[in-house]
Amino acid sequence: MTRKFNFCAGPAALPTAVLERARDEMLDYQGRGLSVMEMSHRSDEFVAIASKAEADLRALLDIPANYRVLFMQGGASTQFAGVPLNLLGAGGAANYLYTGIWGKKAIKEAEHLAVGSHVAASSESNGLIAVPRQNAIQLSGDAGYLHYTANETIGGLEFDYIPEVPADVPLVCDMSSSILSGPLDVSRFGVIYAGAQKNIGPAGLTLVIVREDLLDRARKDCPTMLNWKTAAEADSMFNTPPTYAWYLSGLVFEWLKDEVGGLAAMNAINDRKAQALYAAIDGNDFYSNPIVIENRSRMNVPFVLADDRLDAAFLAESEAAGLLNLAGHRSVGGMRASLYNAVPEAAVTALVDFMGDFARRHG
Amino acid sequence: MTRKFNFCAGPAALPTAVLERARDEMLDYQGRGLSVMEMSHRSDEFVAIASKAEADLRALLDIPANYRVLFMQGGASTQFAGVPLNLLGAGGAANYLYTGIWGKKAIKEAEHLAVGSHVAASSESNGLIAVPRQNAIQLSGDAGYLHYTANETIGGLEFDYIPEVPADVPLVCDMSSSILSGPLDVSRFGVIYAGAQKNIGPAGLTLVIVREDLLDRARKDCPTMLNWKTAAEADSMFNTPPTYAWYLSGLVFEWLKDEVGGLAAMNAINDRKAQALYAAIDGNDFYSNPIVIENRSRMNVPFVLADDRLDAAFLAESEAAGLLNLAGHRSVGGMRASLYNAVPEAAVTALVDFMGDFARRHG
Repeated sequence: MTRKFNFCAGPAALPTAVLERARDEMLDYQGRGLSVMEMSHRSDEFVAIASKAEADLRALLDIPANYRVLFMQGGASTQFAGVPLNLLGAGGAANYLYTGIWGKKAIKEAEHLAVGSHVAASSESNGLIAVPRQNAIQLSGDAGYLHYTANETIGGLEFDYIPEVPADVPLVCDMSSSILSGPLDVSRFGVIYAGAQKNIGPAGLTLVIVREDLLDRARKDCPTMLNWKTAAEADSMFNTPPTYAWYLSGLVFEWLKDEVGGLAAMNAINDRKAQALYAAIDGNDFYSNPIVIENRSRMNVPFVLADDRLDAAFLAESEAAGLLNLAGHRSVGGMRASLYNAVPEAAVTALVDFMGDFARRHG
Repeated sequence: MTRKFNFCAGPAALPTAVLERARDEMLDYQGRGLSVMEMSHRSDEFVAIASKAEADLRALLDIPANYRVLFMQGGASTQFAGVPLNLLGAGGAANYLYTGIWGKKAIKEAEHLAVGSHVAASSESNGLIAVPRQNAIQLSGDAGYLHYTANETIGGLEFDYIPEVPADVPLVCDMSSSILSGPLDVSRFGVIYAGAQKNIGPAGLTLVIVREDLLDRARKDCPTMLNWKTAAEADSMFNTPPTYAWYLSGLVFEWLKDEVGGLAAMNAINDRKAQALYAAIDGNDFYSNPIVIENRSRMNVPFVLADDRLDAAFLAESEAAGLLNLAGHRSVGGMRASLYNAVPEAAVTALVDFMGDFARRHG
């Protein structure tokens, strides 16, 4: 068995230590004679697993007591509908910051659901290479919330600040590709949601962190399974939750706490990884990244080769060197290296070395 | 490591051979250097896994070419909303057969979504111990579909026939706890759906099998992620699907095909298991099951002790004997043994022996 370095944008690399533990417990969880996947979600064993996962997540992010943590399904794309359905029962317009493809999808879903929507600020005019600054944000008068995408996974564009909003306008954030990459002041948000398959665990689990006072705002036509209050009242077990994904996410939270040493330590590692890769890009005319320095994503680093006729060779040679999944998103092409928490510094070192070598051989 | 006999109603037992293979492939799938859970859903490797799973399922159930197979999320409870949202865009009333708790939940969700709903036949008058016969089914004049629950997991009540419907009324079936238990004539149905966590794979995946001509009936307010046509057009990859659950379900389908020998063979095994357990219940005054013979579920066998003061002893002693999860659903109490495909005949033999022994010692 050889583990290669995996730069996939999602489903993404998981910590080897987590996979080893899952492997060892696969057929028999701690002597109980069955797999976690075969347990009733209401059994004492599974409820303990689920509760510890939530407690560890709360400890990592220092989540205030007046926030509920929901373990849901359907990915961020389902929450694109869940957000307006849960927050606009009393009317109000959905307000969005537009900084890339994922934010656009959220806006389109609000429009599909015939919610009044308003783009409060956009990066379109700068070509999606810089996020709007605070003074450019213009909420509509009837704003029911302000939604933004903390990190655009495809564009590689990340907010370097948390937008300020009036006290009566909840700030809603799609944090799918940046949650847990460093410390976070959860109290600044009304709602945070994230698909699991980047920094949390396997695809099929979606975290929603919601301030309790926002649980009473759902539209009447919100399907029961999308309703956050229903999920909160049932401790995320209104129906059978994705138990194995929940368990694996718990193992990741435990790894972050006990092995990495928490989110401040993770943050420092992520800074070093991103700095090393951007330095390799900026230091060689062979490579480039278009994003303004302060909004460069730490998690997703897109870059292009000066000569795109070398793209195929770059991908083939990097894969042969054990560096997997470096192709850019199918909608944009080029290259992308995702540097999520589970991607070790050694992977970035290997990538930087490869890039230098490739440039020398082909430059 | 000791694997015990697990009679859980769901998440349920999985074949040991499937878990062994998942364990062996956990850190390195077939020499690729990464786990299935770390692969892009759009990678060649994962698309091959996903396609094989669908092909094996199609072969097992002999699914006609004009049906689409969707790998979705959210469980059957999400499809309780999905069914009216996808089928009643042109109006029409949601028609239901009511035979137990799960059917009731489906009816409630249709009412919640302000769909006109009609109970076309009910088992309420017989105390939920027999399903309505064909001649009792009275559709409303504007029926948009007829929905029923093939097997009520909690009550242990299973249809022994497929209801007849007029050609223009699609038959919709929640088959969560009986799909793949034996051969099925899919062509009789408009839509079949099932949560995975009984006979398919781990919780977090939901199968929808839908006749293609029904993909154009969605209500405008159907959230994109609940829309079957959207899922069909994207080959169930409109967003990131639950890849690991999909892979594991594929391993279960492969096991059913290659190890068990297909659904006719599985059917015979399931017949033997159910007959053995019902014989043990009927042959001893110590135990009883209330369901009429022809509607007794093969998958979920609820039974009560003549003296319910012995319930706690029965559960403690059976667990000590390595027979797990025999408590009835929290809403009804008593006992329940679920005999899904992955529960081996040896488990039923051990349970029957235990029941005889327990009755002798406590009778």
